[in-house]
Parts: sequence; C-alpha cells; structure tokens
Amino acid sequence: MSTEWLNEELYSAWGQRFRVDRELVRKKSDFQDIVIFESESHGRVLVLDGAIQITERDEFVYQEMLTHVPLLTHGAAKRVLIIGAGDGGVLRRVLEHPGVEKAVMVEIDGDVIELSKTYLPKIAGAAWNDPRADVIVGDGIEYVAKAADESFDVIIVDSTDPIGVGEVLFTDAFYQHCARILGPQGLIVNQCGVPFMQADELRETSLRRARFFSTVSAYVAAVPTYVGGFMTLGVASKGGNPARQDVGVVRERAREAGLLGKTQYWTPEIHVGSFNLPPYIAANLPASND
Amino acid sequence: MSTEWLNEELYSAWGQRFRVDRELVRKKSDFQDIVIFESESHGRVLVLDGAIQITERDEFVYQEMLTHVPLLTHGAAKRVLIIGAGDGGVLRRVLEHPGVEKAVMVEIDGDVIELSKTYLPKIAGAAWNDPRADVIVGDGIEYVAKAADESFDVIIVDSTDPIGVGEVLFTDAFYQHCARILGPQGLIVNQCGVPFMQADELRETSLRRARFFSTVSAYVAAVPTYVGGFMTLGVASKGGNPARQDVGVVRERAREAGLLGKTQYWTPEIHVGSFNLPPYIAANLPASND
Repeated sequence: MSTEWLNEELYSAWGQRFRVDRELVRKKSDFQDIVIFESESHGRVLVLDGAIQITERDEFVYQEMLTHVPLLTHGAAKRVLIIGAGDGGVLRRVLEHPGVEKAVMVEIDGDVIELSKTYLPKIAGAAWNDPRADVIVGDGIEYVAKAADESFDVIIVDSTDPIGVGEVLFTDAFYQHCARILGPQGLIVNQCGVPFMQADELRETSLRRARFFSTVSAYVAAVPTYVGGFMTLGVASKGGNPARQDVGVVRERAREAGLLGKTQYWTPEIHVGSFNLPPYIAANLPASND
Repeated sequence: MSTEWLNEELYSAWGQRFRVDRELVRKKSDFQDIVIFESESHGRVLVLDGAIQITERDEFVYQEMLTHVPLLTHGAAKRVLIIGAGDGGVLRRVLEHPGVEKAVMVEIDGDVIELSKTYLPKIAGAAWNDPRADVIVGDGIEYVAKAADESFDVIIVDSTDPIGVGEVLFTDAFYQHCARILGPQGLIVNQCGVPFMQADELRETSLRRARFFSTVSAYVAAVPTYVGGFMTLGVASKGGNPARQDVGVVRERAREAGLLGKTQYWTPEIHVGSFNLPPYIAANLPASND
C-alpha cells in the first residue's frame, strides 16, 4: 500500500490531506496545474493548482446544491449557462431537468474537460453527448460580454476561488454582463467559498452582485471536501428573493422534474432551509434588500 | 515561524492538519494522550488520542448546537446532566439558560478538566465557578447507573467516538439507565460522528437508542474541524418528536432565555431546519417512529 499523502495547499496553516493510492495524471495546462489521483477514502480526486476541486465520493453534495437550487427556484428555466465546471458534473445535473432546452457550458481550460472525460467519466456520465449540451472551450468573461440580452434564465458559475484563472469571474464587469443576459426572472449562482476560512470572498462578491441585481442572498451546503464548515453559494436574482420560497412549491417543481427521491443531499426542505444562515455567515452579506 | 504540522489521526486515509505555532502541553493521562497546542489558524486546539476535540475558533458551532437544541426542545429543563465535555464549553452553554437550576457534569478524565482550565480558559469562561454547576470526575456509566429515577430533564453526552474511553457511552446499558433517570418529557443528545466518514456510528447508536426511547431522531451541524460534511447529533426523547418543532415556539423560548442575537451558529430557523437530513444521512436512521 502506498504511503504517499497529498496535502491540499489552499490555506497556509490548515488543510486536508489524502492518502494517494496512485496518481492518474499530472499536467501543466495553459492555465493551471492539473492532478487527478485515486484516493483510498474518496475515490478519484481532481486538484487544480493545489486545491481540491471535486472527489467522486462527495461530488453529489456540491453539484446537487449548485444546480437544483437555482433551477427549481426559477421554476421554468429553459436556457442555462454554466461557466467553468470542466468536470461535467454540473452539466449532468442541469440536464436532469427535463424543462431545460439548452445548456451552454463555457470552460476556459480544455485540458480539464479532456482529462475529466478520461479519468472521471462517472462525474458527467452521458451529459457530454446530450444534444441539448453545447460545450465551449473559451473564456467565460468574453462569452457573457458577447451574449445577447436576456438570452439565459439561469447562470451557474462553478469557478475556482477568486485567485488565478477564476479571478475575472468575480469582477464587476462579469456580473454586469450576467445581469444583462439574464431574463427578467433570471438568477445567477456562484460558489463563494467557505466563510469560516474565506469570509472576504462572500462579503466582496455579495457587494459586487448587489450593484447589478435587485436581490442578493446566499445559501449553504456542507461539502465534505470543502473543509471548514459550510460553504456558501451566492445567489443574485432579477426577480423574487430566493430566500423566500415555499417548500411546497419547490417540492411540486421537483416532482414534475422527476427529481424527488433521486438525490442524496438535496431535498425540498434542505433547499428552503439552506437560506437560513448561521449568524457568523450572515454577517458577511449586505443588509437585506427585499 | 514554526513549520511543524499536526496531522489528525482519526481516519486512516484522509484527515486534516494544522500548522502548530507551539505545543502548550502534552500529557499521557490515565485514559488517553492529551495534547493542547496553539495553531496559526484556529487558536488553541485540544487533541485526545490523535483526534481533534475542540478549537477556540470554531467551538461555538458544536457547543451551541449540542446544548441549545435539546434545552430549547425540552422547554422547561431545570436539571441537566452532562457526560464528558471536559473542556467546559457545554457546561458554559447550559448555564446560559436561566431556567437551569442544576448542571451536573461527569467527566472521567480529571486531567482534561485541569488542562482545559489552564490552557483553554476562554472555552468554559466562568462556568466552573457557577453555584449551579456540580463537576464530578468520574465514570459516566457508573453515574447514570446510580442516579435516581426521573432525576434529570436533559442529558448531553459529549463523548469521543465509540472507541477507547468513550466506548461505554454507546452501549445498551448506558442508554437504558439514561432513559430511566430522565423525566417523562426527558431527552438525551449525543454526538454521532460524521456520517460521510463514520456512517456506522449513527446507524448503530440510533438502533440502540430506539430500544429505550419512544422517539429517535438526529440533527446536523456543520462543524469546521469535524471534517467530512455534516456531523450528526443523535437525539432520543421520552416525549414528543424533536424533529416536529414549531419555529415560533423555539424562538419564544430562546427569547425568554435571553439567547436571541447572542449566538454565532444557532438560530431558531437553524434549530428546526437541522432535523431535515440529507438522504445520505437519513438512510442511517431507523424508520420513523412517530
């Protein structure tokens, strides 16, 4: 048995480590260092620039919450834009919604897509070949700058943290274009890090989004390998406040979409309850604006 | 700056690690290896037999949820028994409830209490000197075996995992006595580990508790340093089902106790919502019995 360990390098003084069964691939792409390894405890693990992105065993938590919450909050999403998410797991969850007619995925690093197809095939499943999927290797900020007004219902941003390649996805310019290309009831969700360790990330992105959207809120998910307690998913809406949803409406939408009983983390109750933030997290959001 | 790291040894193939500023104490007690160190990221950290027990920075999550949920669920708790919790953090939270007349704490390892008083004084604050506190160095299983029938309203078990010194706190005999010494509306809460990593712990303790209590359920908390997603807190009740609480009743009880606005994780909404379990966790509980 191997005794090699991989230490996550996300934080300077605390982190997680995995016992590595074997390294499957290591590549320096044009954008970042990519590693995929087989772990004893979590199945296969994708690492970008030293930060854990996804593991086979716990990806369901992040993917279900990042996808089902905005789509079921919108309620009639037909056109979905995914930025990042090169492993394909968000694309797969988006396409589980039968009402979705088009899912455009824009990932800047084609190597992440190719290596995920080869080494993490379970995460995307058959999504890559779905006729509703349009997978583009390109720059998310350029894509939203060129997209037509009101051409999407939901935007899901599955970025790395706002350092390095993901930095532009946390800028004013990016959010301004997102607001422009979303329909009147449109909403955008993006990962805002783990506030216990990265409170600035939630605070700063919430303030930025508040400049371009009528409602800014956040919800939480306990993702095993995004260590440090709850991670937050920031949501900004041009329509109603996502934090004020009726559980019965959410359940009925999920029932119509055929999702009830098929999830491992998401439920209608968790969907609605995830907007109830612990005070230590809520302190990083702008004052309520609804 | 030190470059020494402490690796948690709880799981064989995955874990967290802390950069150690300085080790404050290391002692082999009669029961376990005790280490307290100063970390760069989490303040002071207590480690028992290689497993992280509490850190100054995130202890509020675990302590608030382990204490406020059962006490406010009961609604009129006057007599509280705490088993374990040698750092004194649960005792402090219990005594924040003005309705509590007596808090008996039984910790088997006097060294944990003494070292916590010396090196982690912030965690218990003034609780050690509260006239309502009765701190006993002794065996929890022996204590409950000798205690009078219906002599407590709430029992809080803050044990280590069911290996080593904590093992007896997960046995049939222990739960049987707990049921006997609780009043008619009494309830017991105990930590049941992190199901993503230790699903057996929740499954087995839930089955055991179901033999002696009319209602067995569980609620979740996202504790930063109990890595692996949600930890579960198992609750068993001789009265109503704690999973069916009205948020307005909980809020009113907290208001009367003077707790509203004074917590960093617990809120009435989180209290009620924490009983909504993700399916991957709910799968480890016995079928609903209410």
